[in-house]
Amino acid sequence: MQRYFLNETYNGQNSVILSDDDYHHIIHVMRMKEGATFWVVFSNSKTALVSLESINDTTIKAKIMDWEKDDKELPVHVTIASGLPKGDKLEWIVQKGTELGATEFTPFIAERSIVKWEKKKAEKKVQRWKKIAKEAAEQSHRQLLPIVQSPVNLKEIVTYSQSFEWKILAFEEAAKEGEKSQFAHILSEMKQGDRILIVFGPEGGITDQEKDFLVQNDFKLCGLGPRILRTETAPLYTLAAISYHFELLR
Amino acid sequence: MQRYFLNETYNGQNSVILSDDDYHHIIHVMRMKEGATFWVVFSNSKTALVSLESINDTTIKAKIMDWEKDDKELPVHVTIASGLPKGDKLEWIVQKGTELGATEFTPFIAERSIVKWEKKKAEKKVQRWKKIAKEAAEQSHRQLLPIVQSPVNLKEIVTYSQSFEWKILAFEEAAKEGEKSQFAHILSEMKQGDRILIVFGPEGGITDQEKDFLVQNDFKLCGLGPRILRTETAPLYTLAAISYHFELLR
Repeated sequence: MQRYFLNETYNGQNSVILSDDDYHHIIHVMRMKEGATFWVVFSNSKTALVSLESINDTTIKAKIMDWEKDDKELPVHVTIASGLPKGDKLEWIVQKGTELGATEFTPFIAERSIVKWEKKKAEKKVQRWKKIAKEAAEQSHRQLLPIVQSPVNLKEIVTYSQSFEWKILAFEEAAKEGEKSQFAHILSEMKQGDRILIVFGPEGGITDQEKDFLVQNDFKLCGLGPRILRTETAPLYTLAAISYHFELLR
Repeated sequence: MQRYFLNETYNGQNSVILSDDDYHHIIHVMRMKEGATFWVVFSNSKTALVSLESINDTTIKAKIMDWEKDDKELPVHVTIASGLPKGDKLEWIVQKGTELGATEFTPFIAERSIVKWEKKKAEKKVQRWKKIAKEAAEQSHRQLLPIVQSPVNLKEIVTYSQSFEWKILAFEEAAKEGEKSQFAHILSEMKQGDRILIVFGPEGGITDQEKDFLVQNDFKLCGLGPRILRTETAPLYTLAAISYHFELLR
């Protein structure tokens, strides 16, 4: 069933108004009529089953019928910090990462990032990433719309990281810790509601300088198995592993 | 370092000959000269560090210097059976699935597969998938080149499945088994060297008829968490979870 994210929080209202893109999608793409039902997600993650009540030229009104009971969100918050990759790779890191439960995407301009980040085109690109996140969140039945940040630099990532309980750098050469890998060890230590920030290098990987800077700032190095994963594959690996660890293994 | 898969098994030879695409890549793309070193993977997975000895018009000769010691392959064999999806989705299931350690890809024509599978174009498409698998296996440092089969029908999947220790159908509505999910339960039962066949529906999902047919043939239904994953994302989730379970968690 269709699902739409609202810009309002739930505070007792018994109907909602949808307009703009959602209006267009409901009326012109899905061709819904009065009585049609779909999900709406309030910005405080409350998710309601609604029934289309009335349609006018620019908005529709839908009545709240019921609430979604089961929890669709990961028990921990995951922020994916990707070194800005080439082409449209970040678009699909955002799309797949949203399906897999990421809370936030914070790209950064790494020393080995090849793309020139032009402030002019920047805003348009970030808007596109946000649109991709919204569509993926609707399709994958999320109850939380992931945040997509504009690219920052590594210093800003480190400053931002201070509010996280867990900070890791996905790193091929990472040493194993006893029988368990560092990554599995950290997941087994995490508590419900904890926030984890995971940094990934761009195509060329991160430089020793960037690595040392992160390690000095309490980032743990984590390997992701013996095979070399591409810059766009590694974030999906960590998200799938986090889902498996917290949602299937328990 | 560059890596190339050979069509010969290792049986004591102390040098190898490379030609065709590998020759082209080594000489014209990488511009290697005598003395350059790279990896070659024999078809029995033995992986050697070699040094370029001599170059002629169509072949090069390389001398075996050393052997790769660490194991890059998953301890279990995973066959991904995807209901034939739209567009180029299977191309990147093969690319990403190879990075993540899949042993084999066996697409099948599902009731809800939208693409018409034309026998004429078929061979070309399968060749392209094989090329993508080879390149991804080389880039991700695999020691085994995944097999890519031509699409079959579901009956053939079931016949084929009889040689597997474990058979599962990725299924959204799958019931949970106690505290652990069915998928996590199966992974915890699997032994080193076991083979698992995982079936995924196409965009529209599999039909009840297809599901019942698989269940009658001992396929277990496995959910992959509370979010809806696209047909191209679900196989990557299972492979990442299998790697996490067997390579990081242990």
